[in-house]
Amino acid sequence: MAKKTKRSIQWVQKTDKQKYAGIHLIAEFWNGRIIEDPKKIENILIEAVKKAKSIPLKVAIHKFSPQGLTGVVLLAESHIALHAWPEINYLAIDIFTCGNKAMPHKAFEYFKKTFKPKKVEIKEIKRGRL
Amino acid sequence: MAKKTKRSIQWVQKTDKQKYAGIHLIAEFWNGRIIEDPKKIENILIEAVKKAKSIPLKVAIHKFSPQGLTGVVLLAESHIALHAWPEINYLAIDIFTCGNKAMPHKAFEYFKKTFKPKKVEIKEIKRGRL
Repeated sequence: MAKKTKRSIQWVQKTDKQKYAGIHLIAEFWNGRIIEDPKKIENILIEAVKKAKSIPLKVAIHKFSPQGLTGVVLLAESHIALHAWPEINYLAIDIFTCGNKAMPHKAFEYFKKTFKPKKVEIKEIKRGRL
Repeated sequence: MAKKTKRSIQWVQKTDKQKYAGIHLIAEFWNGRIIEDPKKIENILIEAVKKAKSIPLKVAIHKFSPQGLTGVVLLAESHIALHAWPEINYLAIDIFTCGNKAMPHKAFEYFKKTFKPKKVEIKEIKRGRL
């Protein structure tokens, strides 16, 4: 899947002099669209990776019986994960990207557009903060 | 890998009346043991899953060239991820387990014992909070 497997630290450097390895967006989606097709979820994850300007390495998806779906894409920049509980219409989304080229918020916007949750909570955590 | 793929919501219910789907531990390890062997990292991840009393579904590991290692285990209860940057001796660890039977802190203690970081930061986030 990945053509490029080199990686080295690229600090995210903001004007306020903070320096950190990456950004981790932790999102909770409530009462949005329910998608239970693993192939569709895979496509959504891969599209999110593109929006985040990241490089996918491996994808793992699992469909539960009778309902529920869980998936993760391992990235050269860390990972994007999605865990769905249709029975309570809850979707846990993680977008963790390292480096100064990644666009994690773009992936988040794409997920929001795709799942159309009625309620969203989001936390942003700076990872590997010096 | 998983023998059991059924899953349904099992709320974590604490005495303070909080109700949530799971616990997400976000840990930063600095200046610990560096392990670059993907097989060893896979074994460490699987052992962490056991400590967390969770069910592994899929493991994905990737070794970067010339250094760096990234891996994730998809769980019936969400995921455990580990991303290592040996060049700055930084390890990003996520332990996200849902349900009232999982023991994410046990996995965290196991990672600490294994990697022996000189500095640790940890955040605990309640996911899927009603």
